[in-house]
Amino acid sequence: MLDAGYRGSVYPVNPKGGEILGLKSFPSLDAIPGEVDLVVLAVSAGAVNSVLEDLKARGSRTTDIKAMIVVAAGFSETGTEEGMGAEKRLLGTCRSLGIRVLGPNCVGVMDTLSGVDTTFITGATREKGGISFVSQSGSVGAWLMQTWASGPCPMGFNKFVSVGNMADVDLVEILEYFCEDDSTRVVGLYLEGYLRGRALAHILRKITSKKPVVVLKVGRSKTGAEAAHSHTGSMAGQDRVYDGVLKQIGVRRVFSVEELSDTLKAFDKLPFIKGENVFLVTQAGGPGIYCTDVLSRLTNLGFSHISQQSKKVLIQALPSFAAVCRPEGYADVTAAASAKEQAKAVEVVLEDDAVDSAIFVTVPVLFVPPDEVASEIIQAVSRLKSKGINKPLLSVLLAGEAVSSARKSMEQNGLATFDSPDRAARALNHMAAYRRYRSRQTRARKGDGNLGADHG
Amino acid sequence: MLDAGYRGSVYPVNPKGGEILGLKSFPSLDAIPGEVDLVVLAVSAGAVNSVLEDLKARGSRTTDIKAMIVVAAGFSETGTEEGMGAEKRLLGTCRSLGIRVLGPNCVGVMDTLSGVDTTFITGATREKGGISFVSQSGSVGAWLMQTWASGPCPMGFNKFVSVGNMADVDLVEILEYFCEDDSTRVVGLYLEGYLRGRALAHILRKITSKKPVVVLKVGRSKTGAEAAHSHTGSMAGQDRVYDGVLKQIGVRRVFSVEELSDTLKAFDKLPFIKGENVFLVTQAGGPGIYCTDVLSRLTNLGFSHISQQSKKVLIQALPSFAAVCRPEGYADVTAAASAKEQAKAVEVVLEDDAVDSAIFVTVPVLFVPPDEVASEIIQAVSRLKSKGINKPLLSVLLAGEAVSSARKSMEQNGLATFDSPDRAARALNHMAAYRRYRSRQTRARKGDGNLGADHG
Repeated sequence: MLDAGYRGSVYPVNPKGGEILGLKSFPSLDAIPGEVDLVVLAVSAGAVNSVLEDLKARGSRTTDIKAMIVVAAGFSETGTEEGMGAEKRLLGTCRSLGIRVLGPNCVGVMDTLSGVDTTFITGATREKGGISFVSQSGSVGAWLMQTWASGPCPMGFNKFVSVGNMADVDLVEILEYFCEDDSTRVVGLYLEGYLRGRALAHILRKITSKKPVVVLKVGRSKTGAEAAHSHTGSMAGQDRVYDGVLKQIGVRRVFSVEELSDTLKAFDKLPFIKGENVFLVTQAGGPGIYCTDVLSRLTNLGFSHISQQSKKVLIQALPSFAAVCRPEGYADVTAAASAKEQAKAVEVVLEDDAVDSAIFVTVPVLFVPPDEVASEIIQAVSRLKSKGINKPLLSVLLAGEAVSSARKSMEQNGLATFDSPDRAARALNHMAAYRRYRSRQTRARKGDGNLGADHG
Repeated sequence: MLDAGYRGSVYPVNPKGGEILGLKSFPSLDAIPGEVDLVVLAVSAGAVNSVLEDLKARGSRTTDIKAMIVVAAGFSETGTEEGMGAEKRLLGTCRSLGIRVLGPNCVGVMDTLSGVDTTFITGATREKGGISFVSQSGSVGAWLMQTWASGPCPMGFNKFVSVGNMADVDLVEILEYFCEDDSTRVVGLYLEGYLRGRALAHILRKITSKKPVVVLKVGRSKTGAEAAHSHTGSMAGQDRVYDGVLKQIGVRRVFSVEELSDTLKAFDKLPFIKGENVFLVTQAGGPGIYCTDVLSRLTNLGFSHISQQSKKVLIQALPSFAAVCRPEGYADVTAAASAKEQAKAVEVVLEDDAVDSAIFVTVPVLFVPPDEVASEIIQAVSRLKSKGINKPLLSVLLAGEAVSSARKSMEQNGLATFDSPDRAARALNHMAAYRRYRSRQTRARKGDGNLGADHG
C-alpha cells in the first residue's frame, strides 16, 4: 500500500505490537482509534476465528468497517466439511456486522488510481491505464502485471480484482462495477468456472454494448477442469457452451496469456477500428511472410486493395526492389529502406481510404538505427492525425533489447508496439471482430432485420 | 567481425582508401597483400560488376579466395531478366575462379566458435551453444538472435547461415555440414520454399537419425506463398505435402518463432527424454490449470501416475491444503509453500520411476523471494544428479523482470527456464515426439516389424 502510493491511513495489526515499515502496529482491530474502511486479513485460516471475535468487539462500538479482504486459503475450496464450515462462520459474522467479504483464498485488489494494493504480488506494474481485470486466480493476475511491468515500456492498467472463493462478493458484482466505471475502457476476465451462468452472460452482454471484454477461460480439458476444482472449487462446465455463449454476446475469447495481454493493450491504446481491411508494411521479408500466413487465417481481417495512385507513390518512394502490393495489402520495403522510407510507406497506406488499419514490421539493421525508425513513424502518425486520420497502427520492432528504447519512445508518444507480428495480427483480429459485433448490434437496434446476417 | 572476437585478419576494401574502425582500407581486392579466404561483398547490386573485374584481376595472380558472401539484393529474386542476368554473370565469374558463393540477397554467416560474423544484425547474442540454424531469411535469423540476446540469461547458439537466393551454396549443403558438425547438437531451419524437395528430405532424415531438427516453414497460405515468392523467389509448395513429409522423417515442425526458440532451447539444454509421462508441479493454481489444458491437448505427452509412497511423501512435505495428484500427474503446492517445499515436490516427483519429465511453475510472492526458489531448485537437481537421476525439468518462473536474477542463476547452473507454462509444455511435447520417432527407428532397424505401430 505504501509503495503503491496510497494516501489514506494504513494501520498494521499484530498482537506482538511494535512497528511495521515505520508504522505503529496495533494489538487488535478494536484498538485502532481512527476510522477503518477496509480490513485486509492476511492471517492463516486457523487464526481467522480469533479475528472474527476482534471484529465483533469493534462492531459493538462502531460500524466503520465496510469490507474485508480474506487472503487465507483452507476454506470451501478444500471441499472438506471443516473448510466449508469455517467459510460459513466467517461469512455469518461479517454479514451480521454489515461487512462485505472479498475471498477467501484471494490476493485482493489493486487500483492504480487510488493506490490501493492489498496483494502480495512482487514487481507488478503501477502504470495507470484503461484496463480493468477480474480474476479467479491471484497468480494469473500477478503473471499479467509482472509481464506488463517488464516490457520496454511498462503497460498500464486501471483495477485488478482477485475474487478467490467468492463467498460473498462475486465476479458479477465486480463486472457490474467495471461496466459503470468510466475510467475502465476495456474489461479483462480470467475464468475457471461460475455456476450462475445466466447472470454472468447478462452482465458481459451489458458491458460489450459499451466496451470490449476479453476472456481467458481455462478448465477446457477434463484434467484442467479437475485442477480448477481443486484450486477454487470451481465447476469448469462444458467448454463448448462457454465458447458459444461468449461468441454470441460479443466477448472476445483468448487462449493464451500473451493473446490476453496483446488484445487488452490493443483495445486500450488504439483507436476504434472501422473495418476489416489491413495493410502490412514490412522492412523484412521473412517476418512479413510469417505474419501474412497468420493474417490469412484470421476470419475478421482481409487484405486492403489500395488505389493505383497509392501504389505509384509507394513505388516511387521505395527502393527499386521493394515488393509493393505483391501480394495485395502487402509491401516489403526491404532492408535497404531508410527510416524515412519505411515511415513514408506507413503514411501512404494509412492515408488510402481502402485501408482500415496497418501493421508495421521492422528489424533493426546496423545502418538504420531503430530510434531513427521510431522517430520517423511518430512523425508520420502525427502528420496523419493533423489530417484527421486516426486508424489503428500496430508496430512490431524485432527484437528484444536492441529495440527497447525505440519501442519506449513510440509508446510514450501514444503508439502501440507488440512483441511479434503474429501477436499484433491476432490482437487486431479481436478488434475487428468486436467492431463487427457492435455494428451488427447497431443494425439490429435500428430494426433492419439483419440480426443474423454478416456482411462485414 | 571485430566485435564478435574474430582472431584472423580483416581487410576492409574501399576505393576511397583511408581507415575503417582503425583498420587500413585497401582500394581493391587485388591490392590486399595477405591471404584472403572469404570475401564479404556488401556493395549494392549495381556495383557488383566492377568487383567481379577486381576478383578476376586477383584470380589471375592467386587462387586464395575460396568463398564469397553476397549481401546485395536485386538479383534473381526480383524475377526480372536484368536481375537473373546479373546473378548468372556473378556465378559464372566465381565458378571460373573456383569461388563458392553464398547469396546473393543474404546476410551471411555467424559462427560463435570462430567469431566469424558477416551479418549486419544489431544486438545479436554472442553466447556459445549447440544450436545451428539455417535460414532463407536474414531477418528471421536476426529476430531469433536478438530475442536470444535479451532473455534473463542470453541464449547461446553455434552457427547461423542466411542462404538468400541460393545461387550456388544452398540449404542442403549447409544442412549436410550441420549433420557432420559435432558441436551442433540441434539443427534449426527457417524455410520459405525449396524446389529440390527430395534432396532436402534426404538430408533432414539423415540428420534426425543423429540429432533433432526443428523447422519453421512459412508460405502456408496462398497470400503468404505469394509474399515468399516476392522475397527470395521461392516456390512455397503445397503445405500439406511439407507437413506430411516432415512428420514422416522425424522433423519437428513449429508454427511460431516463440515455439521455434523454446524447442531449440529444450533440445539443446535438456537431457534426452525417456518417455511420455510428465508431472506438473505448480505453486500457482491458475497458471497450473492453464498449463494442464495445454498438456491435455499435446499428443506426445501424458500425465504421470506416481506411487502411493511418493504421494504420501508429498502430502507430508507440503502445506495442508496443497492439491496432491488431484488430478493425477499434477500437484498445486499453493502460494503458502516455502522455497524448500516447492523444491522438495520437484525432487520427489522426479525421483519416482513413473515420471519421465517435470514442469515446475512458480509465481514469486513477497514472502518467498524468487532467488530463494531458484537456489532450492538448483540444489534439488544437483541431489538428483548425484543419485544418477537426470530427467528433463522445465522451469517457469512468472514473470518478467521480477524473476530475472532467479532465472539467470538457474540457467547458469545448467537448468532450462521458459517464459510461460504452455510454451514449456509445447517444447517438451516436441522432445517426446522426437524420442518416439527415434525409438520407432531403432525398433525398425532391429527388424521387429513394428515400424508403423505406436505404443508410446
